[in-house]
Amino acid sequence: MKRLAIVLAAGQGKRMKSKLYKVLHPVCGKPMVGHVLDAVNQAGCERSIVVVGHGAEAVKSYLGSSAEYVLQEQQLGTGHAVKQAGPLLAEEQGTTVVICGDTPLVTAETIEALINHHTRKSAAATVLTAHMDQPYGYGRVVRGENGTVLRIVEQKDCSPEEAAVQEINTGTYCFDNAKLFAALEKVTNHNSQQEYYLTDVIGILVRENEVVEGYAVPDVRESIGVNDRIALSEAEQMMRERIVRGHMLGGVTIIDPSSTYIGAEVTIGSDTVIYPGTFLSGKTVIGEDCIIGPSAQIEDSIILDGAKVKQSVLSQAEVGRESTVGPFAYLRPGTKLGSKVKVGDFVEIKNASLDDGAKVSHLSYVGDAKVGKNVNIGCGAITVNYDGYNKSITEIEDDAFVGSNVNLIAPVKVGKGAYVVAGSTITQAVPENDLAIARARQENKAGYAEKIRARAKAKKQRQQESE
Amino acid sequence: MKRLAIVLAAGQGKRMKSKLYKVLHPVCGKPMVGHVLDAVNQAGCERSIVVVGHGAEAVKSYLGSSAEYVLQEQQLGTGHAVKQAGPLLAEEQGTTVVICGDTPLVTAETIEALINHHTRKSAAATVLTAHMDQPYGYGRVVRGENGTVLRIVEQKDCSPEEAAVQEINTGTYCFDNAKLFAALEKVTNHNSQQEYYLTDVIGILVRENEVVEGYAVPDVRESIGVNDRIALSEAEQMMRERIVRGHMLGGVTIIDPSSTYIGAEVTIGSDTVIYPGTFLSGKTVIGEDCIIGPSAQIEDSIILDGAKVKQSVLSQAEVGRESTVGPFAYLRPGTKLGSKVKVGDFVEIKNASLDDGAKVSHLSYVGDAKVGKNVNIGCGAITVNYDGYNKSITEIEDDAFVGSNVNLIAPVKVGKGAYVVAGSTITQAVPENDLAIARARQENKAGYAEKIRARAKAKKQRQQESE
Amino acid sequence: MKRLAIVLAAGQGKRMKSKLYKVLHPVCGKPMVGHVLDAVNQAGCERSIVVVGHGAEAVKSYLGSSAEYVLQEQQLGTGHAVKQAGPLLAEEQGTTVVICGDTPLVTAETIEALINHHTRKSAAATVLTAHMDQPYGYGRVVRGENGTVLRIVEQKDCSPEEAAVQEINTGTYCFDNAKLFAALEKVTNHNSQQEYYLTDVIGILVRENEVVEGYAVPDVRESIGVNDRIALSEAEQMMRERIVRGHMLGGVTIIDPSSTYIGAEVTIGSDTVIYPGTFLSGKTVIGEDCIIGPSAQIEDSIILDGAKVKQSVLSQAEVGRESTVGPFAYLRPGTKLGSKVKVGDFVEIKNASLDDGAKVSHLSYVGDAKVGKNVNIGCGAITVNYDGYNKSITEIEDDAFVGSNVNLIAPVKVGKGAYVVAGSTITQAVPENDLAIARARQENKAGYAEKIRARAKAKKQRQQESE
Repeated sequence: MKRLAIVLAAGQGKRMKSKLYKVLHPVCGKPMVGHVLDAVNQAGCERSIVVVGHGAEAVKSYLGSSAEYVLQEQQLGTGHAVKQAGPLLAEEQGTTVVICGDTPLVTAETIEALINHHTRKSAAATVLTAHMDQPYGYGRVVRGENGTVLRIVEQKDCSPEEAAVQEINTGTYCFDNAKLFAALEKVTNHNSQQEYYLTDVIGILVRENEVVEGYAVPDVRESIGVNDRIALSEAEQMMRERIVRGHMLGGVTIIDPSSTYIGAEVTIGSDTVIYPGTFLSGKTVIGEDCIIGPSAQIEDSIILDGAKVKQSVLSQAEVGRESTVGPFAYLRPGTKLGSKVKVGDFVEIKNASLDDGAKVSHLSYVGDAKVGKNVNIGCGAITVNYDGYNKSITEIEDDAFVGSNVNLIAPVKVGKGAYVVAGSTITQAVPENDLAIARARQENKAGYAEKIRARAKAKKQRQQESE
Repeated sequence: MKRLAIVLAAGQGKRMKSKLYKVLHPVCGKPMVGHVLDAVNQAGCERSIVVVGHGAEAVKSYLGSSAEYVLQEQQLGTGHAVKQAGPLLAEEQGTTVVICGDTPLVTAETIEALINHHTRKSAAATVLTAHMDQPYGYGRVVRGENGTVLRIVEQKDCSPEEAAVQEINTGTYCFDNAKLFAALEKVTNHNSQQEYYLTDVIGILVRENEVVEGYAVPDVRESIGVNDRIALSEAEQMMRERIVRGHMLGGVTIIDPSSTYIGAEVTIGSDTVIYPGTFLSGKTVIGEDCIIGPSAQIEDSIILDGAKVKQSVLSQAEVGRESTVGPFAYLRPGTKLGSKVKVGDFVEIKNASLDDGAKVSHLSYVGDAKVGKNVNIGCGAITVNYDGYNKSITEIEDDAFVGSNVNLIAPVKVGKGAYVVAGSTITQAVPENDLAIARARQENKAGYAEKIRARAKAKKQRQQESE
Repeated sequence: MKRLAIVLAAGQGKRMKSKLYKVLHPVCGKPMVGHVLDAVNQAGCERSIVVVGHGAEAVKSYLGSSAEYVLQEQQLGTGHAVKQAGPLLAEEQGTTVVICGDTPLVTAETIEALINHHTRKSAAATVLTAHMDQPYGYGRVVRGENGTVLRIVEQKDCSPEEAAVQEINTGTYCFDNAKLFAALEKVTNHNSQQEYYLTDVIGILVRENEVVEGYAVPDVRESIGVNDRIALSEAEQMMRERIVRGHMLGGVTIIDPSSTYIGAEVTIGSDTVIYPGTFLSGKTVIGEDCIIGPSAQIEDSIILDGAKVKQSVLSQAEVGRESTVGPFAYLRPGTKLGSKVKVGDFVEIKNASLDDGAKVSHLSYVGDAKVGKNVNIGCGAITVNYDGYNKSITEIEDDAFVGSNVNLIAPVKVGKGAYVVAGSTITQAVPENDLAIARARQENKAGYAEKIRARAKAKKQRQQESE
């Protein structure tokens, strides 16, 4: 049986109070509709039709060719929305999942289980239900004696018996595709809202003696629909917990799961310890036995086994085995650290490779550079890579020593084993094993400090008097 | 009807174990008694009498002319405390709210609702009550058949039936002012503690056939009284949640509400995203479409639309539209950034304006300065504004380029379009479009690095041998 | 009565998915088995036998002489494990606590109460039990009419009545030592797992008409056994809460207890305020009236009264009274700050003392140095302490002023009241009150900036054309 999906993503989402279209709001870094589409794809749906409306272009632009689209120009109800998929889908034979684009927590496993239940029961429709202690406000799922679904009753229409039902409709369904579109033809908008409701399809199928089933999601929180930023933050938290638990079960120590923020695509090796306040996002890969954080923010980076990254920000960087970064370092795109490299405090690296054993311990900037093995870059040393228009390359060969507060004016090369003394500004190549110096000789002016102080004090006094 | 308030703020708060007087402990940055006074003021109380005792001067100094004060020299019970307000208040006609200064979470809405209930019922007294699952330890509110309050019974005096009552006395009340002070004359201290209890007023009024009502606060947590630092942290958390929810409903995305710390007076525009570990305090104003955090601490600052502030500390700073700050920047008071300014990593700005498009990308200090449009301040460049006594001004005009590790010795001016080469120390003005240089020529000493290394190695060896 | 303990620490802990042996995984910085051993020691156990197996050497190496060890070569069940202690313990008269090494939250108070209950009841064995709402999966404690324990029934063996019992076996016990070892001789492995179960001892003692008691731990969470990283993170959280609550009761304000990480041995004075994201570990001592954090990480350091440490990392450092550190400072081992010292942003200090009133405000590195009173170290100034082989000392005497971007090439001394002008590299001593200068004279090249720009622009254009 072919599996199909219709994702409802046309609503405006006024309560989000946002210029950004609702289903594009991200949860753990991925737009909600992306989570939903991933889930139906992973559950084996071969074709996914996204019903777009408000913000149609933005949604299509984000999802691209991973889905097909139909436009619901006017929002006339969920039944009307699903019906828009008819021209693309009505002729298909198969099982069709209908799901809202603002329910980012529904898992592929749940959709799979829903479809399996549906198939096993030879149902025309199966409602994904949930059990709630406080069902007030939700549509209740009323079941018959044999357990099949008789009807879905909205809160306002509930009899006292129905109001007591604690099984609710999550708004996700699966249908026999042909029966879905046949029934949609019979749905009317003869109600106070003058909308076409998808839930009416359930009633129609029941009346036609079709089998309508209910499958209850194990964790009701999976079915959360996001309508405002509070729900968005709750969805974010649950997604975060889900991701973090997975890493813990895989052997990662996470000191405080509630203050650790890991994207869905990040991988982490066992025996790595993650300290709180850490953000791992994008396609970040972290090895085994690493120590990450506290307060590390790492995006699209690769950290090899045994490395340590503390209180630092990394973006598109690579950190080699047993290297250490931070506290307070900033590795920008194109940073590539070899093994046992040390990048210390208040250091920025950008578009630069540092070979094994190199050290940039403090207060340095290394940009557009190629740094050899065991090079020592002193405190305050800077690669001057920018003249206001062009970026130029600095090359520092193995075993060279660059002194404190040195400027290397790129393009420039410091040869193997060369030594640049502190305070020098280097504009020309330093050959292998040469020592380069570019600084003025020290002069001590006897007793002059006293004079300077006297002058400064007098100035201060004048100023105070004039005020 | 005139609305009046008596705020009880005389207790010592021993369990706080603090040199600071209890009601002055802040919750979300504002002393508890300040929250209480704000709430009664917002509920329309025209006069507020704060009963002070321990720490009287500190409380008066904090609240200033926003309240009137009476001194309770000895702490002889809540009834005694309220009675102290008599000389100021006994002659007034109106409704008097009595509330403790250590209940910072009671809202103006609740006080308003309490007074409205009181007025509607023509009551002599109305108790603010709360429903608790675990009422043990609290005074129970016993109601009669018609729903009026019959008495308040302390835990130790409870019969089994009374102990089963789950409605408790929060310690906040409103009274007909004249009846309150008349009844207070009849309160005695004939009890084991030899104290005058305010709750005795309730009994007296009931015996005099006055109407005593109860109004239940919707959320029991509002009524928390803070007696130790654990309760203080709980109050802080609830206040924080309340503030953060308000911003979310207003269209702000807050990734992790539980790790985001926003003061009561902060405003934030819609579609701004706040990352965790962020502190916004004082009169901070943040525009729309900003990205703030993670780990930003921003106090009394203004951030305009579209700006980004990451891992940085700001105090009394202004950040213009679409400017970016951080990671790891420190903007101190008097910082004023124009539009599209970049302040990068390891940069401190103090008492300085940077006009549109200026860049200070890394490892710089700009203090007491006026920086023009599109100026580029290189890595490690420093405005030398302090001679040990005086702070002097640096002026850098539009389009100037200041090289890496440059010192600008203030007072000094770099003219429009001027260029200061890396490594220079500038003591005199650089005219428009001039290039300034102040550095020694580079000299390469052939093979000298080897000699230096040999000397250093030998020294190390000598030292090791001597140890 | 002598108190003895047997700590079971031989299991492998496969679900931890770790190279580190299970009981060595730390909770709040201390390995789990360390917490357990501390608890039994504090409860007065004179001898503690740790049964080791997997990772035996690592466990022994960590615990050292604080315990005695027996090896359980094959893991044949808890009864078998305890029996291994026989050669060391079987001859003792006394009460023996048996506890698992993976239950780090059990307190000394609970063990004390368990032993006291045991003694008072003249029991042969007392089971530490707990009441659980959801006991499924745990061994149920079935009590007789007189309250003594009749048997412990595993989940799979429970009758419906037994399954309804909500009192469970935590796996901690105390025994009459002689009766324990006598009963162990009778335990067999005639069960499906072919293991020797310690719980069988309970059945044997009951059959012999010995008194078997149960003592319920007040907080069931104390009894958590850690089998995977999720449980590890939960144990960490509970231990953290316990520690943090203690500090709050002692008069410390902790703004957000759930995001504050304090080690068990840290002490903090009253009226100190700890902001979120702060880590205090090791033997850190913090005085009164300090402000710590947000995002401070402080290890093995001493912070005296009234100091402030913001967004900084400290390790083995001392901070004097009313000194301020940060934001974004890094104090490494051997840092010793006097009173009213200021260490500002982007400053690293290592193995250096700074006397009262000294200031290092920004972008500096002070390493291997002795800095006098009221010294001012300017922005970007650096002690050049390393030549690639040796670390040398810099000495700066009282009241000296070191200008911006200065290099002090150690070993070197700056005398009392001396003045080093900005941009100088100092290689020789600066005598008292002298002024030292080492920089080139400024030269302005008229109109040259325009030429440079033209050249740079042309280069950029060439490059773009060639691409």
